[in-house]
Amino acid sequence: MKLPKSKQSEKAGLVPGTIIYTGNKRNKELCIEAFDYNKDFIEEKVLKDVKEAFSYEDEDTVTWININGLNHIEQIEKLGQHYQFHPLIIEDISSTAQRPKVDEYEKYLFIVLKMLYFDKNQNLKIEHISFVLGTNYVLSFQESEGDVFDPIRERLRAAKGRVRTLGADYLLYILMDAIVDNYFNLIEIIGEKIEELEDKLFDKDVEGNITGDIQNLKREILRIRRAVYPLREVVNKLEKSENDFMHEKTQHYLRDLYDHIIQVSESIDIYREMIWGLMDMYMSTISNKMNEVMKVLTIMASIFIPLTFLAGIYGMNFENIPELKFKYGYFVLLGIMVFVFFGMIYYFKKKKWL
Amino acid sequence: MKLPKSKQSEKAGLVPGTIIYTGNKRNKELCIEAFDYNKDFIEEKVLKDVKEAFSYEDEDTVTWININGLNHIEQIEKLGQHYQFHPLIIEDISSTAQRPKVDEYEKYLFIVLKMLYFDKNQNLKIEHISFVLGTNYVLSFQESEGDVFDPIRERLRAAKGRVRTLGADYLLYILMDAIVDNYFNLIEIIGEKIEELEDKLFDKDVEGNITGDIQNLKREILRIRRAVYPLREVVNKLEKSENDFMHEKTQHYLRDLYDHIIQVSESIDIYREMIWGLMDMYMSTISNKMNEVMKVLTIMASIFIPLTFLAGIYGMNFENIPELKFKYGYFVLLGIMVFVFFGMIYYFKKKKWL
Amino acid sequence: MKLPKSKQSEKAGLVPGTIIYTGNKRNKELCIEAFDYNKDFIEEKVLKDVKEAFSYEDEDTVTWININGLNHIEQIEKLGQHYQFHPLIIEDISSTAQRPKVDEYEKYLFIVLKMLYFDKNQNLKIEHISFVLGTNYVLSFQESEGDVFDPIRERLRAAKGRVRTLGADYLLYILMDAIVDNYFNLIEIIGEKIEELEDKLFDKDVEGNITGDIQNLKREILRIRRAVYPLREVVNKLEKSENDFMHEKTQHYLRDLYDHIIQVSESIDIYREMIWGLMDMYMSTISNKMNEVMKVLTIMASIFIPLTFLAGIYGMNFENIPELKFKYGYFVLLGIMVFVFFGMIYYFKKKKWL
Amino acid sequence: MKLPKSKQSEKAGLVPGTIIYTGNKRNKELCIEAFDYNKDFIEEKVLKDVKEAFSYEDEDTVTWININGLNHIEQIEKLGQHYQFHPLIIEDISSTAQRPKVDEYEKYLFIVLKMLYFDKNQNLKIEHISFVLGTNYVLSFQESEGDVFDPIRERLRAAKGRVRTLGADYLLYILMDAIVDNYFNLIEIIGEKIEELEDKLFDKDVEGNITGDIQNLKREILRIRRAVYPLREVVNKLEKSENDFMHEKTQHYLRDLYDHIIQVSESIDIYREMIWGLMDMYMSTISNKMNEVMKVLTIMASIFIPLTFLAGIYGMNFENIPELKFKYGYFVLLGIMVFVFFGMIYYFKKKKWL
Amino acid sequence: MKLPKSKQSEKAGLVPGTIIYTGNKRNKELCIEAFDYNKDFIEEKVLKDVKEAFSYEDEDTVTWININGLNHIEQIEKLGQHYQFHPLIIEDISSTAQRPKVDEYEKYLFIVLKMLYFDKNQNLKIEHISFVLGTNYVLSFQESEGDVFDPIRERLRAAKGRVRTLGADYLLYILMDAIVDNYFNLIEIIGEKIEELEDKLFDKDVEGNITGDIQNLKREILRIRRAVYPLREVVNKLEKSENDFMHEKTQHYLRDLYDHIIQVSESIDIYREMIWGLMDMYMSTISNKMNEVMKVLTIMASIFIPLTFLAGIYGMNFENIPELKFKYGYFVLLGIMVFVFFGMIYYFKKKKWL
Repeated sequence: MKLPKSKQSEKAGLVPGTIIYTGNKRNKELCIEAFDYNKDFIEEKVLKDVKEAFSYEDEDTVTWININGLNHIEQIEKLGQHYQFHPLIIEDISSTAQRPKVDEYEKYLFIVLKMLYFDKNQNLKIEHISFVLGTNYVLSFQESEGDVFDPIRERLRAAKGRVRTLGADYLLYILMDAIVDNYFNLIEIIGEKIEELEDKLFDKDVEGNITGDIQNLKREILRIRRAVYPLREVVNKLEKSENDFMHEKTQHYLRDLYDHIIQVSESIDIYREMIWGLMDMYMSTISNKMNEVMKVLTIMASIFIPLTFLAGIYGMNFENIPELKFKYGYFVLLGIMVFVFFGMIYYFKKKKWL
Repeated sequence: MKLPKSKQSEKAGLVPGTIIYTGNKRNKELCIEAFDYNKDFIEEKVLKDVKEAFSYEDEDTVTWININGLNHIEQIEKLGQHYQFHPLIIEDISSTAQRPKVDEYEKYLFIVLKMLYFDKNQNLKIEHISFVLGTNYVLSFQESEGDVFDPIRERLRAAKGRVRTLGADYLLYILMDAIVDNYFNLIEIIGEKIEELEDKLFDKDVEGNITGDIQNLKREILRIRRAVYPLREVVNKLEKSENDFMHEKTQHYLRDLYDHIIQVSESIDIYREMIWGLMDMYMSTISNKMNEVMKVLTIMASIFIPLTFLAGIYGMNFENIPELKFKYGYFVLLGIMVFVFFGMIYYFKKKKWL
Repeated sequence: MKLPKSKQSEKAGLVPGTIIYTGNKRNKELCIEAFDYNKDFIEEKVLKDVKEAFSYEDEDTVTWININGLNHIEQIEKLGQHYQFHPLIIEDISSTAQRPKVDEYEKYLFIVLKMLYFDKNQNLKIEHISFVLGTNYVLSFQESEGDVFDPIRERLRAAKGRVRTLGADYLLYILMDAIVDNYFNLIEIIGEKIEELEDKLFDKDVEGNITGDIQNLKREILRIRRAVYPLREVVNKLEKSENDFMHEKTQHYLRDLYDHIIQVSESIDIYREMIWGLMDMYMSTISNKMNEVMKVLTIMASIFIPLTFLAGIYGMNFENIPELKFKYGYFVLLGIMVFVFFGMIYYFKKKKWL
Repeated sequence: MKLPKSKQSEKAGLVPGTIIYTGNKRNKELCIEAFDYNKDFIEEKVLKDVKEAFSYEDEDTVTWININGLNHIEQIEKLGQHYQFHPLIIEDISSTAQRPKVDEYEKYLFIVLKMLYFDKNQNLKIEHISFVLGTNYVLSFQESEGDVFDPIRERLRAAKGRVRTLGADYLLYILMDAIVDNYFNLIEIIGEKIEELEDKLFDKDVEGNITGDIQNLKREILRIRRAVYPLREVVNKLEKSENDFMHEKTQHYLRDLYDHIIQVSESIDIYREMIWGLMDMYMSTISNKMNEVMKVLTIMASIFIPLTFLAGIYGMNFENIPELKFKYGYFVLLGIMVFVFFGMIYYFKKKKWL
Repeated sequence: MKLPKSKQSEKAGLVPGTIIYTGNKRNKELCIEAFDYNKDFIEEKVLKDVKEAFSYEDEDTVTWININGLNHIEQIEKLGQHYQFHPLIIEDISSTAQRPKVDEYEKYLFIVLKMLYFDKNQNLKIEHISFVLGTNYVLSFQESEGDVFDPIRERLRAAKGRVRTLGADYLLYILMDAIVDNYFNLIEIIGEKIEELEDKLFDKDVEGNITGDIQNLKREILRIRRAVYPLREVVNKLEKSENDFMHEKTQHYLRDLYDHIIQVSESIDIYREMIWGLMDMYMSTISNKMNEVMKVLTIMASIFIPLTFLAGIYGMNFENIPELKFKYGYFVLLGIMVFVFFGMIYYFKKKKWL
């Protein structure tokens, strides 16, 4: 097994701070969305260049800039200059191997998450997503278009729920919550895959590469765990952190988010134990089948070998074998053979082998 | 294996705070019970609407309102408005996937537990139950009618024991204690199931889907553990919390409750190890059986194959085989065969295969 | 497997604080022993009723009251009233499922331990034993007569050692130490049982229910661990606790006791790993035996099947088989058969199957 | 398995503080490189004797002295005298068994790391590397020439990036970062080895010493883990440490380095679980193959043994076997035999054994 | 398995504080060595009675008294009286089951260690060794003569190294260091034993009691771990402890000692995992061998059973079997048989069974 190859290792020869997009989803065109809103007002735009976003400097509106396409590094760097990013932030945004974390800087919080989904071929995909939270803005950086934020966009436009009335920190919360809620789907698919494999195992005719499937599931659950576990610490740290960006009101929501992450983690742990158990089940299935095969062989051999021996006796060419001259010798022997045959059948029935 | 499907995943596309009952026990009619009591007085009612309960505002009585039917969300919301619930509380009350926890708010404590039982088909059922503890009231929210609180109702009516003389926190304690005491029943049933499986394994004729049964038990114990383990933290937090709702007197009782939860947890851990051991036992049982089968085959083959060979010798058509012309050649050979037969039997007896 | 059934589950329907003896050792007669002593003086009595013990109120003597028979709850309650027990203490004294713990109250310490021994049938017995330590008294509560305290009684009578010169806390210490020292015996018996099983496994003819024995040992070690592990915390807490009952001088002794418990725990852990390893050994023993069986079959079949084929060739009835007419054809063939026979034997010898 | 033999054990009889190079890479010639630089200036030299390096005492330049060849202890001792090393430092520099650590002294920090790589034969090599960080110098000690620092040398010469503008602590950071980045390569090779083994296992014809390969991989991953895990503590300590050598600016970089180490550790853990899973896969592969073998045997035996029996019947020499005289008896029997043959084939097809 | 029997269990019936030597190495003669030294002066003596040692009361010399033979309890007690030992110390010195620990008393430190070695029969021996460190003396207590301190004695006599110039705490350090350094030898022997077992397993002809050897190794590594692990805490506590016996200068050395213990512990952990892996390897070896056996059987049976059937056909006595009358029928059939024979051989070659 090889973990999906990141380009982390390609960076080995470079000095630290070199910025390379290490993922493999290269958007031809950068896609920049911008929302600027407050209670009474909302403006939505698709930008061509991040520079257009720098006009949203109003103190009493919340700005959300969402960037799809981490390979357009020069654009991210422009944004970085405007918002005074630490060099390492830009590196972490574009380095897809970066694990989930939260870094506190003076003027903003930097958060890394993972978006998880199964693609059409049921392969696990892990997408790298980063957030920067300032006093009145949220910046989000995704690898490619297509995400789980549509309901949030809808809410923003329609001014539904609390989102328009609360600050940037609440926006960050619902964005993160959307991602975490999506993990439940993932977990459910894993559950279905396990169920499917179990059914296959109970099925008499186990076909295909079961150990490969189990090993695959193991790898998937390990990769999911790796993406989800660090989140606990991230959200915990967010909840505990004291700064100007997270308001007290949002903390109750973060605690709830934390709860959801714990729930996902627990499910992962349970599924993990179940998957490890599958291998044992498979081994017992194989052994049971071998038992089956052995029984057929033993029954066949045990019935016919003695009978063949009997036939062999009277196939001998001794001059003096009295039975051979009996008129009904042949029929008597046939009778004995039928008797032995059914005797063996009865014996194996009693042994529950038949 | 799939964990029982909650509707958590259906919520994935919704903004946080959307309230949906995620369980699958839909009471047609909401059932609201109300107790209002102090040392000298008790009133018991079945209400049609939670509004009727708002009259119990007396400072020197304890009020217990028990609501069965989490799908009647509008009623829970009404109650929430009256008691000033945080929006997340209503969400947690109706979200059955919520894990056990305690949340401290300024005016009340919010507690989530799990009620566990085996239904008629011996399937594990997990019921979501929430409590809100205020200065002089306890609200409880259950998925459906039928619970373990009947002895407590009896005590309340009969003014037996300490319950009528102590406050709302003691009421909460005995409600939680009733739930935890019920876990012991559960644990005992798990014990019996393990015993049953062990007996099956020692039984010569293992029939049926043993691996399936073991995998089922594993899943059940993992689900129970998941419901019980967080309780330790919950009760510990309750004991340690400093607020106006938990009196010092109740803390000794909470420590006792904590002890019981630890006891349940320890039993769960022991049973878990035993269940994991069952798979090994099963594997050894299969292997032993295969040994058995192989022995039968080997004995039959080892006895009759040489005999058949002997018969084959004298079935040959060489013109010059002197033995064939001996008068008692046939009988001598029969004698040799009988000797070989018993020789083999003796050999296998000595090897303890027979 | 079922853990020995306690009556904890029978209590499920009762309100907390209900006192039932949950063990199954019902002494017909209550047995109360009392020692009252100081440096210069000792009085020993067997009492009929706990009330007789209340006269030992002297401030400068140490009183030890030992009660055998937890089913005589009314007597324990009388004692409880005299010494002002919290209601939960009486419950814990009589509830045999209660795990080892120490509870600090204002006027006394309450300690629960487990006495472990193997009965005549080599079944593990766990006896519930509780202590109450006051400023100048120790109360001990046991399920039945017969304990490990005889050497201590002897010492008290003979004024040997330090016991008569030191306070009630030292008495508690040597009582606990006697119990813990007895664990070493237990651990040794477990060691012998493992050794016995290992010998059985190396023995060619494994007979009897090995997996059952292993599963039994597992259960026993898990139960012992459950009784011993919490003791570490208990003694640690005792050592650290600041109160009027434990004197500084005794703390060095408690640290020593703590050391012994750690030693027992470590032995338990080692034996646990060894027991888990036994199952693997058993599996390899089974597999080795199957190998043995298979080899016998393969050797027999490989030798005689080709020979039988040869005999079959010359048993055919073709009119024109020149060899049949050779004068010494039969003997040549016999020679070839002998050659094949020893060739096969040699081959299997070289393969080390014989 | 034996861990690569260090000479640690040879030191057993010596008093502590005795300095022996315990590795096995003996450079014939000592190789000393020296860099002296600041923002505007750089000097690079290859030295013959460490004494030449003592002239770089300028307070406003950073000096990096890199020594290859730990067997030249007298040179290291000279350096030690100049920079006032504690005796244990020299011992740790030359003792290759020393695990990664950081020691804080008044005037410098002492850091031990491991450089990991696979040699041409794909054997894991672990090289011992130590750093001493002073206010304006970094000393590095390697076992042999050839390292991962070339890009850094290039940067120093070309004044690229931040390195020339920042202090000795930043230099230390990029040296350590280069080593850690190299771990990613290693991890990837391990991934490829696992993948290769998995492919081998799924391949029908498992050849060669698979268990040996798995055991080897286990050993390698354990050795890598042992080299990498302590690094977490090392970097954490560096980040937390308060002294004159580490500037606040560098701390963000150290946190990033820490993140990378965690990433490597997580990959190690995942691969470890995968490797442990390989053995199970191998076992199931063996069992599957045995199933295969058994099926062939069973099919052959089940088809031909009954047929041979039939032939045996009519090979008997009874005088009165009516069928033998039927004109087409032989052909009828042949027909029956063909029927039985295809019947068996059909039966095994249905059983999915063919 | 039984852990080597200590007499701890024999003490079960005795009151605490009873002093019995629980080991089984009974020196006939007590052997007391005494060193008294400072920078300029050294005196070495072999004493007959500990009393002779009491003269070394000089404040500016360091005294080391080494006692071999823990069964001479009265001598140890005399020493104890002189140096004012707490009663538990004498108990711990002579109780060989005592685990490694450090106890701080007002006037001295008491330290328990284990000396580990393999005896001539390669059985693991664990020797109990205790130290008492005062301001200017070190007392050491060993079970029997023969230890790893000879190089230290040499150094003392020759005034080599730092030992003569530093205090009693440094002497204690080098004594402990000598013991810990010796663990590396042990670890190496374990490594060799594992290597040997692995070689045996890869060897075609596994002979002898492999599972017994593996179980033995397990036991040894568990016992070593038990002796080494607590040392980490001991040395850590020594390093952290603030008292008059340990000087600041020695702390750097203790940190180094701590490092060595961690190294040993890590090696133990790695070897432990490798040993546990051996059982799996053994199981796969057995299974592979069974595969081998099965293949031989299957090949023999698959080749000769069909041939025998063919011969059986033409051994039938039907009157009308046309082939029997063909002139070259026999030779044609022989040709067919040869063809079938080589066809089967080819088939099995293709299947890689041959």
